[in-house]
Amino acid sequence: MDSLTQLTELLKKLPGIGPRQSRRLAFWFVRQDVAFIQSFSKTLLEARSTITVCPKCKRLHPKNSAREQCAICSSEARDATTVMLVEKDVDLENIERTGTYTGRYFVLGGTTSPLDAHPEKKVRIESFLALLANTNEPIREIIIALSATTEGEDTYTYIEEKIKPFIESRGIVITKLGRGLSTGTELEYVDKDTMVHALKRRS
Amino acid sequence: MDSLTQLTELLKKLPGIGPRQSRRLAFWFVRQDVAFIQSFSKTLLEARSTITVCPKCKRLHPKNSAREQCAICSSEARDATTVMLVEKDVDLENIERTGTYTGRYFVLGGTTSPLDAHPEKKVRIESFLALLANTNEPIREIIIALSATTEGEDTYTYIEEKIKPFIESRGIVITKLGRGLSTGTELEYVDKDTMVHALKRRS
Amino acid sequence: MDSLTQLTELLKKLPGIGPRQSRRLAFWFVRQDVAFIQSFSKTLLEARSTITVCPKCKRLHPKNSAREQCAICSSEARDATTVMLVEKDVDLENIERTGTYTGRYFVLGGTTSPLDAHPEKKVRIESFLALLANTNEPIREIIIALSATTEGEDTYTYIEEKIKPFIESRGIVITKLGRGLSTGTELEYVDKDTMVHALKRRS
Amino acid sequence: MDSLTQLTELLKKLPGIGPRQSRRLAFWFVRQDVAFIQSFSKTLLEARSTITVCPKCKRLHPKNSAREQCAICSSEARDATTVMLVEKDVDLENIERTGTYTGRYFVLGGTTSPLDAHPEKKVRIESFLALLANTNEPIREIIIALSATTEGEDTYTYIEEKIKPFIESRGIVITKLGRGLSTGTELEYVDKDTMVHALKRRS
Repeated sequence: MDSLTQLTELLKKLPGIGPRQSRRLAFWFVRQDVAFIQSFSKTLLEARSTITVCPKCKRLHPKNSAREQCAICSSEARDATTVMLVEKDVDLENIERTGTYTGRYFVLGGTTSPLDAHPEKKVRIESFLALLANTNEPIREIIIALSATTEGEDTYTYIEEKIKPFIESRGIVITKLGRGLSTGTELEYVDKDTMVHALKRRS
Repeated sequence: MDSLTQLTELLKKLPGIGPRQSRRLAFWFVRQDVAFIQSFSKTLLEARSTITVCPKCKRLHPKNSAREQCAICSSEARDATTVMLVEKDVDLENIERTGTYTGRYFVLGGTTSPLDAHPEKKVRIESFLALLANTNEPIREIIIALSATTEGEDTYTYIEEKIKPFIESRGIVITKLGRGLSTGTELEYVDKDTMVHALKRRS
Repeated sequence: MDSLTQLTELLKKLPGIGPRQSRRLAFWFVRQDVAFIQSFSKTLLEARSTITVCPKCKRLHPKNSAREQCAICSSEARDATTVMLVEKDVDLENIERTGTYTGRYFVLGGTTSPLDAHPEKKVRIESFLALLANTNEPIREIIIALSATTEGEDTYTYIEEKIKPFIESRGIVITKLGRGLSTGTELEYVDKDTMVHALKRRS
Repeated sequence: MDSLTQLTELLKKLPGIGPRQSRRLAFWFVRQDVAFIQSFSKTLLEARSTITVCPKCKRLHPKNSAREQCAICSSEARDATTVMLVEKDVDLENIERTGTYTGRYFVLGGTTSPLDAHPEKKVRIESFLALLANTNEPIREIIIALSATTEGEDTYTYIEEKIKPFIESRGIVITKLGRGLSTGTELEYVDKDTMVHALKRRS
């Protein structure tokens, strides 16, 4: 296998890159200056070594010599009574972009389904439970913010069940994101499930 | 213009039928038996003469010698304290299909925008206001159930403003369908507007 | 079943109309004036009674008291040495629109596959063979003009085999439409089959 | 700008990678082991240093100490009387995959349009003309194999004009890929341009 094919195979492993695009990317890379390739590799390695996982919320953040936790976890301006569980870093960024959520986060890292023999390997539930057991923060609400898909629903059920024993006597509530008509939904085409939610949550 | 072209032009007027499909339909009709064409025309005319507009809610319903109003308007089993305003008959059917709404309806017949010089010609607001003024039913809630689109929002604003003076002293509330994540929405791709709703309406 | 549902069911039979659109069309028809419904029925019936099948080429054409055959079949300006076999009326119209074909046509009425027990019921091959046997026109070329799909290819094979015995001693050739890159085809995404044709037919 | 944003910006430059996917890829890379990042960088650099441009046909190929030219240019089994001009490496690979072309290639590297002030910077026409002037190979045919798009047609016109003076007295012909129905084309939907080609090139 020549080095171009090796590169193609490697590029196929990137999320969202199919066989055809990986080949096109391989040719593209090889046509660039050596200086670009070196700079690309340097940027990759630099990002890898200066970006780290926040020990508390598990999201990626730039290393900081002054503090170990990420900017959100260490900010006094963020509401410590609310923690939102999200699947991945881009979901967290999408929520931050709304500018309306002021609490903390926890990144689960994946979703699970009832068929998984080891769901705890798919979602960082154990880290979260440890955090919950040891925190002295005044948590009042845990928002499980997952996609409105089968994967999201299954993961919600799993997470909720795991968390419940830890919150019972502590006055913490578990909430989930509101269901209803999303922007652009036409009433003529809306599915039954969404319609039922939209009716129940009218206001 | 030959009769086939006349038929093609007429078929173009049907909602959702483009020029290419109208031509294909014209050829298709002409290739059918005369008996089919006659039966098709008969069914059309029969539907037109036996289906009528309910004088109260403006929806289409089969004529009934025993009562003038549609089955929903005349049903004692339906909750007379709630009336839902929808754009069109298919929206109403889509909501009925959920099996969870037990109130009454009113079909507006269209949407409007701030640019319309005569919005009252696009939506049957005047009929609804007359209904509201003259009813002796114990209406407590008016649900404006429109699509989560610009047209829907504009129409909501118009309708709400028109209705307000009529309900002020009567303890009637105006509600709208709940906004949030619709089935299938992935958090990574959700728009800001929907995310804000989903956060605010978490539960 | 009420008359609206009957109309909906009937509209579902139209080519390219799904269940949702048939319901929307049914409501739309019933909301029209009686005058429109009557005019629609009249136009349908008129098209059905004034448009007829050309006895020679089987295409639909306006009845004409002066001649039985369609305008193309009876035109002296059309090249009688070439006859093109097409699947349906809209295909014929699409080819006429190019303005470059000057021969005659024959409308097969459908496609067939090797699984059909009675392919002669799907395509009007017998009428065409009868035409071929009895004509005194100087036919030199039969163009089988079908879609570049599996159905088209299968039908081509069937038709060609049926026609061959009739043309052997008469110096008639059978041709098919040229294969190659269609407008918009990008070389990076072209399928192998098309590429092989494009290479072979380069010029 | 933190290193993650730098990586995101860099990833946006990759062909076919949008802003959203570049962010997702950046997070993905940073979540990988350092070992993976190092191996990825190594593979990139290795491909860049072992894959080179063939001095003759300009395509990418693995460096080879025994010969400078690529495997196709140096193969005696390939027909030296035919050379095919393609836009890019993936087009060449797509054509090789058909297994039916036995000649040589030349990779133009891009397309041009009448609006380009310096078309010779977009396509390697000067290298090709130099090759043509100096070769002692018995070239009989130059196939300009470009996409059936406006860009492809414009580039064809430009290339053909540039080549003509060099071939006039040498008995070399310029050809282009055959146009016609590509696999899957339905006659009902075919554009006029393709139909005209399909008719003219019937066989």
